[in-house]
Amino acid sequence: MLAASPIETLYEQVAGKVEKLIRSGVLRPGDRLPSVRRACAQHGVSLTTAVQAYLSLENRGLIEARPKSGFFVRSQLLDLVREPARTQTGPGARHVAVGSLQSRLFDEATRPGVVPLGAAYPGTENLPVRKLSQIMAAVARRAGAQGLAYDLPPGAEPLRRQIARRSLDWGGSLAADEIITTCGGTEALALCLRAVARPGDVIAVESPSYFGTLQQIEELGLKVVEIPMHPRHGMELAALEQVVKTRRLAACLAMPNFNNPLGSCMPDENKQRLLEILACRDIPLIEDDINGELWQTERRPRTVQSFDRTGSVLLCGSFSKTLAPGYRVGWVAPGRYYEPVKSLKLTSTLATATLPQLAIAEFMANGGYDRHLRALRRAFATQLQRMSGAVAEAFPAEIKVTRPSGGFVLWIELPPGVSALKLHELALARNISLAPGPMFSATQQFPNFIRLNCGHPWTSRLARAVAALGELVRSPDTATVSVHQANR
Amino acid sequence: MLAASPIETLYEQVAGKVEKLIRSGVLRPGDRLPSVRRACAQHGVSLTTAVQAYLSLENRGLIEARPKSGFFVRSQLLDLVREPARTQTGPGARHVAVGSLQSRLFDEATRPGVVPLGAAYPGTENLPVRKLSQIMAAVARRAGAQGLAYDLPPGAEPLRRQIARRSLDWGGSLAADEIITTCGGTEALALCLRAVARPGDVIAVESPSYFGTLQQIEELGLKVVEIPMHPRHGMELAALEQVVKTRRLAACLAMPNFNNPLGSCMPDENKQRLLEILACRDIPLIEDDINGELWQTERRPRTVQSFDRTGSVLLCGSFSKTLAPGYRVGWVAPGRYYEPVKSLKLTSTLATATLPQLAIAEFMANGGYDRHLRALRRAFATQLQRMSGAVAEAFPAEIKVTRPSGGFVLWIELPPGVSALKLHELALARNISLAPGPMFSATQQFPNFIRLNCGHPWTSRLARAVAALGELVRSPDTATVSVHQANR
Repeated sequence: MLAASPIETLYEQVAGKVEKLIRSGVLRPGDRLPSVRRACAQHGVSLTTAVQAYLSLENRGLIEARPKSGFFVRSQLLDLVREPARTQTGPGARHVAVGSLQSRLFDEATRPGVVPLGAAYPGTENLPVRKLSQIMAAVARRAGAQGLAYDLPPGAEPLRRQIARRSLDWGGSLAADEIITTCGGTEALALCLRAVARPGDVIAVESPSYFGTLQQIEELGLKVVEIPMHPRHGMELAALEQVVKTRRLAACLAMPNFNNPLGSCMPDENKQRLLEILACRDIPLIEDDINGELWQTERRPRTVQSFDRTGSVLLCGSFSKTLAPGYRVGWVAPGRYYEPVKSLKLTSTLATATLPQLAIAEFMANGGYDRHLRALRRAFATQLQRMSGAVAEAFPAEIKVTRPSGGFVLWIELPPGVSALKLHELALARNISLAPGPMFSATQQFPNFIRLNCGHPWTSRLARAVAALGELVRSPDTATVSVHQANR
Repeated sequence: MLAASPIETLYEQVAGKVEKLIRSGVLRPGDRLPSVRRACAQHGVSLTTAVQAYLSLENRGLIEARPKSGFFVRSQLLDLVREPARTQTGPGARHVAVGSLQSRLFDEATRPGVVPLGAAYPGTENLPVRKLSQIMAAVARRAGAQGLAYDLPPGAEPLRRQIARRSLDWGGSLAADEIITTCGGTEALALCLRAVARPGDVIAVESPSYFGTLQQIEELGLKVVEIPMHPRHGMELAALEQVVKTRRLAACLAMPNFNNPLGSCMPDENKQRLLEILACRDIPLIEDDINGELWQTERRPRTVQSFDRTGSVLLCGSFSKTLAPGYRVGWVAPGRYYEPVKSLKLTSTLATATLPQLAIAEFMANGGYDRHLRALRRAFATQLQRMSGAVAEAFPAEIKVTRPSGGFVLWIELPPGVSALKLHELALARNISLAPGPMFSATQQFPNFIRLNCGHPWTSRLARAVAALGELVRSPDTATVSVHQANR
């Protein structure tokens, strides 16, 4: 085709200008492009032309459309980087022993001057600090004596009502009186584990799994059997099916929405199938939906609980990843385990702090929680994209990187000879914290994996830290068998 | 002696006037008398005369002096009421099963319209609502991003420093870095139990014991062996000594300062002896000092921990009984169990809410905590006195009532044939909550005991409730074997 139509020329001109901005680094991976309307004005073209220009850039993999958010610059290098494969697991039920690593990781996170790529925290820059603090101050003054009094389980009614209202978003239709508030998602999960299992019992978990849950399981004297995971679709149900046939499980514990660390999201049909598999043996599901609001998918994914009609799902949520980690407010809808969970809550912490619950309820009712969540999801998308791009650039080409569909962490498979534990040590010596892969498994899988926290806005400091990690990964010091050891 | 000296006549005149005020009910049990200086002015007499008048009234048992607080009207009827005897315990280690009663008691406590004599809460009328709420509002605004961020274990440094400073009062000389903050005293105790014991292990406890602790023990799958108590001096150490000789204990758990429900206080020499007995077998002590600041004794009693040089005492404190139950802030100084307790804290609730900790630290530093505590102790003394008097008046003469030397609950032995559980039922039908004795024992001792909460200012509503309880106690409906049953 020699003679391009004038319109084609025009949109290609626009696309060419934008591409130049991307190639020169003015627009960087994760940046949002001007809206289509704005692009019309900027380039003096029609809506059709602007749309065609963006679609052309998308076809060439330079930018990507995100539902309801617009167009964003994609990392080119990331295209060359593969995703991790389906995970493998060892056979048998195991006692867990990841404890000391977790304690260390949290110690690092609080050490001043450490680049916080380890623990999975949202940066307070991404949180509504001013607004929520004002609400807390107003609520403290207004609540008076109520603020000082115990707010016994099931916890603050205004908060439970707000959570129940939101449950419609995930297909849940919970009632306020099905919910018990807790001291963060951590307590919610701990209460559920204690309600369904006794020491020595076996829990089926995802592999990889959030290390905090693994440590809870360890400290309760429970055992785990690990189920392999698809990097995008979560738990491999065929594997689970085999396990339930051969082994008595006290429960299954999973993060169907945005597994930490994979960022995978289980499709709806898998969620229903999961319920069926568990229902056959009357096995309860502890559903950790702590990342549920942090979707980068088309829409808020449903919870497994929303498909359940038998009360055998214990659904756990939290405001620690979306609003205020330090308020320590989470919740659980324990289904038919309501009474035991409520009773355990009494002996675990008696009650959840009153004022933080009331402040969050007020923020949800009148503080613009939805607006905040939209901004937060955009920020996490950008931060994930930036981090992915920087990792693709700095790390060896044979690494593999997840494409999380929610949450705010990245899971990276390093070349086979690299020890994540050694990398963790050496990185910390350079004031960089990260989460080494073996923490995410009871059977010490993932020796050459790391998880990077993308909860903080991208800065040159983070960029330098990732570059430094890249150097370390390439250095012989992080090899599983060091030169020194090999020579002996 | 016919001819009394003029001075003697004068002070007897003054004493006579005061006695008339007491007899006529103008001054009631628990009321504070005018200060000695004020009495001089009121009666136009010298300091010596006023003091002599008060001492004469004290000698006759009409009033009592309280250290640093002045003179108070004593209940006359209470003199006729005996104290409970040393408690008895059954042999052997038992699994605990008091759970459902606790859950019910807390449900009652939150039901509107119920007279709150059940759960041991300080009334918010006795708490610095206005001042603390103002501080919370100011702290929320000032803390900004810090208020929203995790405050990971060991918890807020300003609060730990304040607690360390106060530890001098109880002979403790703790350092801030020996302390871990918790979600209330409940979490502190739960963490300690989990740090020292495994399911099936045996814990020595006081009999009676706070039912919340008994339920924690139950839910952790531990067993208890109960140690009898002296109503004023606490744990009977000879009995404990016998137990440690014949049985392996994972720990001893006690409230040496103001056992709940007895209000007993262990003398210093007993505290030292307790440590010696436990040290011989290397048994840790979980010391619940949650009532420690609520002394009616000469001075703040020492903790057992303050005598310990080996780190084998895990000392637990809280602000729930003195300042703000709903803030959910407690603490533990776990001695040589520091690391396991800290690790368990991570998996129990991850962190304690940030702002409530900072607000309490600020109140302790600049809010007049000591002044508040003095007022609170005076209020509790008065409320205990009022309740004791009312009980002595309304209940049958053969009851026995404790003389608590601290805290804010009263422990009452009803006539042998009365069922505390039946009384609990019938009282609740009249909207009166109380704590029945069997809750305070793993072996269902104390079938005819009740605990009454004196945390609220005395009102005619409370007076009517106690009168109603008295009627119920006398009625055949609360008899252990009902007429109906006996006839069958």
